[in-house]
Amino acid sequence: MAASPLMEGAGDHIQRVDTLETERALVSKYEAFVFDCDGVLWGGSHAIEGSLDTVKALRRAGKRTFFVTNNSSKSRRQYCVKLEGFGVHGVGVEDIVTSGSAIAAYVKLSHPDVQTVYMIGEEGLEEELEMVGLRVVKEEARPAPGMTEDEFRENVTDPEVGAVVVGLDTSFGFRQLCVASSYIQSGAHFLGTNPDVADRVGSLLMPGTGPMLTSIQTASGVAPVVVGKPNPLLIRQLMDQNGLAASKTLMVGDRLDTDIMFGNAGGVSSALVLTGVSEMSDVVGLQAGGDKTPTYLLERLGALLPAATEAAEAATETSAVAKM
Amino acid sequence: MAASPLMEGAGDHIQRVDTLETERALVSKYEAFVFDCDGVLWGGSHAIEGSLDTVKALRRAGKRTFFVTNNSSKSRRQYCVKLEGFGVHGVGVEDIVTSGSAIAAYVKLSHPDVQTVYMIGEEGLEEELEMVGLRVVKEEARPAPGMTEDEFRENVTDPEVGAVVVGLDTSFGFRQLCVASSYIQSGAHFLGTNPDVADRVGSLLMPGTGPMLTSIQTASGVAPVVVGKPNPLLIRQLMDQNGLAASKTLMVGDRLDTDIMFGNAGGVSSALVLTGVSEMSDVVGLQAGGDKTPTYLLERLGALLPAATEAAEAATETSAVAKM
Repeated sequence: MAASPLMEGAGDHIQRVDTLETERALVSKYEAFVFDCDGVLWGGSHAIEGSLDTVKALRRAGKRTFFVTNNSSKSRRQYCVKLEGFGVHGVGVEDIVTSGSAIAAYVKLSHPDVQTVYMIGEEGLEEELEMVGLRVVKEEARPAPGMTEDEFRENVTDPEVGAVVVGLDTSFGFRQLCVASSYIQSGAHFLGTNPDVADRVGSLLMPGTGPMLTSIQTASGVAPVVVGKPNPLLIRQLMDQNGLAASKTLMVGDRLDTDIMFGNAGGVSSALVLTGVSEMSDVVGLQAGGDKTPTYLLERLGALLPAATEAAEAATETSAVAKM
Repeated sequence: MAASPLMEGAGDHIQRVDTLETERALVSKYEAFVFDCDGVLWGGSHAIEGSLDTVKALRRAGKRTFFVTNNSSKSRRQYCVKLEGFGVHGVGVEDIVTSGSAIAAYVKLSHPDVQTVYMIGEEGLEEELEMVGLRVVKEEARPAPGMTEDEFRENVTDPEVGAVVVGLDTSFGFRQLCVASSYIQSGAHFLGTNPDVADRVGSLLMPGTGPMLTSIQTASGVAPVVVGKPNPLLIRQLMDQNGLAASKTLMVGDRLDTDIMFGNAGGVSSALVLTGVSEMSDVVGLQAGGDKTPTYLLERLGALLPAATEAAEAATETSAVAKM
C-alpha cells in the first residue's frame, strides 16, 4: 500500500497510520488514549478538523481518554469547560493533567513539609495550588513593578515560603525575578511547570515559561525541577492513578521534543500528528527506538474518525444486544 | 619580609604589594592606572577608605587615570559628577568607560548601518546611545506592562530597529522579553552591556543584567554579543584612543572573573584588591599565567597612598624647581 505524499520519508520503523485497515488496528489495540491538547485537538481557540469528533467517538466506543497539557495558565476545571464548549461532555478533572495540577501534586508528594509557595503564574496555576491546600504568596500588582537596589535590600520575604513555583506569567517582571531568587538563595525549592521555550504565535515565536526559568536560574545559580512534559512524572502519575496498562495506552501529540519523548519515557506507545509544531521534516532521520521517535505517524487525529465511529457503533450494538 | 596575614596563601607568582618598597616600585613602574569603580573606589554610595585619596595622589603625581565599570545605569557624565562628589576633580568623560558608552561605540564601529536600536536599560544607557547619534526605541511605560498572546500577535515592531541593546533595567518585564525576542527573530543584532549575573546587596545576591540576557537568549535562540568586562574590547579601545603602552598600564579591580580577566586579556598588568567581591580564598590555587591570575595582590587601593603621596610630592618639587 502506498504511503500518502505527506507521509513519505519516515523510516519503516515508524508505523504509518494512513489506511482504514491500519486505523482500525490502532483503535482496536489501545484502551486508553492520552491526548496533548494544543496542536492535536485545537490551535488556540480554533478546533482542528475531526479531532474532537474522534475523541467523542473513541469515548462512545468505551475507550478511556485523558488530556495532558503543559499549559499552566488554565486550571483543569477550566479545561473541562473548554472541552464542554467543543461538545466533549462528561470529562472530569480526574481525566485531565495540566503542568499546574502536576506541580501541585508534586509539591504535596515530594515536599509534604511545604505549606506555602511563592508563585509566579496565572490564575489557573493558583487555583490548582490552592486546591491541594497550599497557601499562595504572589505579587499583587499587575503589571508587576520593578525593584530598585534599596527595595531589594529592604525586601522582607515570607519565612513560611518553602518553594518557588513558576508557570507562564505574561506579566512576569524584574521584581518577581528578584523575589524568586531571594527565596531560592534562602533555601526554597525551585520548581517550574514546563520547559517550553516559545510557542508560535502568528509569524513569530512568543516566549514561554522557559525564558522565565532560565533568568531565575541564572540569578540564583540553582536549576529548577520541571514537572511538565517531557518529564515522565505526569504520565506515570496518570497511569498509577487510573490503573492503565502500558501496552494498552497510547500518547498522541504534535511535538517530538515534549509529547513523543514524554510517551516514550513513560513506556507507552506514541503517535505523532502533523497538525501542530513538529513537521514531516523533523521525523525524517529519526532512528528506531530513539527517545523522540514515535511508534506511529498520522496526519491528524481526525484520520481515526471512521475507525473510531465503527468501534462506537459496534459498542452500541453490543450494548443494545446485551439489553435485549 | 613576611606577608601580612591577609595575604598568605597566594602563590609566589602573584606579587604581594604589602611593604612601602613594593608599593613604591608599583607606583613608579606604571604611567596609566585603570580602575574598576564599585568594590575598588566605593561600595554603592560609600567611599572605600583611602581609595579616592590614592587616586588623587596618583593624578597629582602625573599618572594618567581611567575608570572602567560594567554598570550601564549611569552615563559617563554622571560618573564625572559622582567622582566630583568624592573630591576627584577634573575627570572628563574621555577618562571613563562604562559598558553603556562601550556598547554605543561598538554599535557605531561594528554596525555602522544601524541607526535605531530597541533598548532595554536605564537613563544612563539611553544618554550614551543618543550621544553617538542613535535613535532609541523603548517601552515608555514604567513599570513595564505584560503582554498577552493577542497583544503579541498584533505587536507592530519598528522596521528601522537594527539592534537590541540590553543593559540592567530594574523594571524589565515580559513585554520587553517579547519585543526583544521579536526583533532578534526578525534579524536585529542582540547586544548586551555586561554579563554580570548578580551583585551582593545586603545578605543576598540581587539579579543583574545576566539573567535578563539569558531569558532573551532562551526565547530567541540567539546568544548576545556582550561588550562589558571581561570582553577585552573596552580596554583595547581605551588603550588605542589614549595611546597607552601595555607595559606601562595597570588594571586595578576587585573581581577575578571580570576585572582581572579583562586586564589579562587586554595584555596589561593587573592588581587585585580585596575590598570587593573576590576574596583571598579565591586567589589560593590560581596558576601562574592563568586568565584570572592577577599580577599583583594588594589588600586595598589605599595601601598605595603613602607611595603615591611621595610621588606626588616629588612631582610638585620637580615642577617647582623647573619654575625657578
